[in-house]
Amino acid sequence: MRPVDYRDGRLYLIDQRRLPSELHQLELDHLEAVAEAILTLAVRGAPAIGLAVAYALAMVARQAASAGSVTVEAVQAAGVRLAGTRPTAVNLFWAIERMTRVAVESEGDPLALEREAQAIDRENEEADRRMGELGRTLLPPGARVLTHCNTGALATGGRGSALGVVRAAHEAGQGVRVLADETRPLLQGARLTAWELREWGIPVTLITDNMAAHFMARGEVDLCLVGADRIARNGDVANKIGTYGVAVLAKEHGIPFYVAAPLSTFDARLSSGVEIPIEERSPAEVSGFGGFQTAPEGVAVANPAFDVTPHRLVTAIITPAGILHPPYAVRISEILDRQEAV
Amino acid sequence: MRPVDYRDGRLYLIDQRRLPSELHQLELDHLEAVAEAILTLAVRGAPAIGLAVAYALAMVARQAASAGSVTVEAVQAAGVRLAGTRPTAVNLFWAIERMTRVAVESEGDPLALEREAQAIDRENEEADRRMGELGRTLLPPGARVLTHCNTGALATGGRGSALGVVRAAHEAGQGVRVLADETRPLLQGARLTAWELREWGIPVTLITDNMAAHFMARGEVDLCLVGADRIARNGDVANKIGTYGVAVLAKEHGIPFYVAAPLSTFDARLSSGVEIPIEERSPAEVSGFGGFQTAPEGVAVANPAFDVTPHRLVTAIITPAGILHPPYAVRISEILDRQEAV
Repeated sequence: MRPVDYRDGRLYLIDQRRLPSELHQLELDHLEAVAEAILTLAVRGAPAIGLAVAYALAMVARQAASAGSVTVEAVQAAGVRLAGTRPTAVNLFWAIERMTRVAVESEGDPLALEREAQAIDRENEEADRRMGELGRTLLPPGARVLTHCNTGALATGGRGSALGVVRAAHEAGQGVRVLADETRPLLQGARLTAWELREWGIPVTLITDNMAAHFMARGEVDLCLVGADRIARNGDVANKIGTYGVAVLAKEHGIPFYVAAPLSTFDARLSSGVEIPIEERSPAEVSGFGGFQTAPEGVAVANPAFDVTPHRLVTAIITPAGILHPPYAVRISEILDRQEAV
Repeated sequence: MRPVDYRDGRLYLIDQRRLPSELHQLELDHLEAVAEAILTLAVRGAPAIGLAVAYALAMVARQAASAGSVTVEAVQAAGVRLAGTRPTAVNLFWAIERMTRVAVESEGDPLALEREAQAIDRENEEADRRMGELGRTLLPPGARVLTHCNTGALATGGRGSALGVVRAAHEAGQGVRVLADETRPLLQGARLTAWELREWGIPVTLITDNMAAHFMARGEVDLCLVGADRIARNGDVANKIGTYGVAVLAKEHGIPFYVAAPLSTFDARLSSGVEIPIEERSPAEVSGFGGFQTAPEGVAVANPAFDVTPHRLVTAIITPAGILHPPYAVRISEILDRQEAV
């Protein structure tokens, strides 16, 4: 079962809200259901959101065409709707722009939009494979990797970004082991990363987020490896809340801190991370879990879903176009310019 | 309702496992129930554990005397049993030693043991009051304090250690506000600290542990203030898991990191924190959440309940005998020697 799939005008998503207790596939056939799935994190992970959005716009084009509507306008309107779901992961906006451009260029040909979404799907797979091949060379034999949030197949629709690197190292017999932050408030580390690693047969130990420093101090972490939701031109990285703290701790302990991300995660328009919008989510995610209220009624809660790690804390960025080292402003411009030239 | 109380040979404890949904007082009249209450965190917080143990030994002496047993032996045996409950907070061992000494010196007089436990109770109150008076001078007007775990009245049986300082600042009209780490896995911050601060009318915002770095980077934290479970002679501090990470983050952001603790939390026998035993608790505390299983079945879990913050990260230690600044080895010896001389 693929995390994000598309057949005969319908979008299929593994419902990530129900994992690990239930492996359930959602079948979606209208735009609002897709918007709801993104908002409620049935699908999450920057590249997977981009892919789901691409297929959703192909679905909208097909429905508009068979209803006799103006397909281009339908795709544009759907793009506006989906752009309003979540603000931080840039892959969402990247996919909307790419699909809308194809809609305009093809004069709303639904088949052109389906082909484009399928191309994004193949590119995700290939990007993940390439990040795995390149990134695994950074891992010493028997590496003990600390990771945060989920960056596996569920997060990309392919083989995973940071977790795809771990998987490639595992398949190459490098003897990798993972310490997985549970990643409050929504526990993507406990629910999704631990589940994927178990499925793949990779040794994993689950910890609460606040244990990371303790295990670093004990010499039990060789490197940190995380994904990204948006990377600015200077190498500043927005990622799941808590990532920045891990990066500071890594620096304090002299541990390399790596980020793995496809090119669709880079935002060429932003010169630094301070410009990245940070999503604030519902207080209920922090004050309880799974319908179980833990905090007292009426207590104020903050719930920023992402933070920004400044580029000075990032040892290297693993991309499908190569492993980037500082100065990132130069290296990122090079790969983005090269991509535009293609 | 006092968190730890004693009347007519019975120990009364606010059941901290049930807060904040229910304010329930346990009535305990035998040793095993007290051991169970400590093991399962019905009573927790280093000074509160010490106080509960003191009253429990007074209760054992009274029961032994009325049963015609040898009181001194009963107290000694009960001390051995209670010493086996939790390894990290030194106040537990300190209370057992103090009560056992009084049992021997009084030849097992139950009234002498009750008086000693009541003296510890009064000393806790007085220590908390003194820490509050001294510690609040460290807080600038309108201070935004980040705290971790719970260090209020629930944790000491008095007015609180670190949270007692916050309370004193609040009562003095200093306009203090608190950012409370929820403190996974058992959520003492969300369940207990947020509850106490709300009861006291002190503004509090609850965050997940992994948000602390984000708010520090945004300039929204003026100082960190935590308690301690054991402090070595060199000033190394064992406290709730996650404390060490907060201290590293504070240093990175140039934020003062203060520890508040009564003298019973200092362990004169240990020259440094590496010698402090760290309790490893049940994996179920991490793999689930309020009876709700979140991690996949069979995934390995680590659950160290405490970590050690090296003294170089501690800006000052607030004690009832004064605010200690580095070099801690000298200052701690001074106050412990002075105490012995009394």
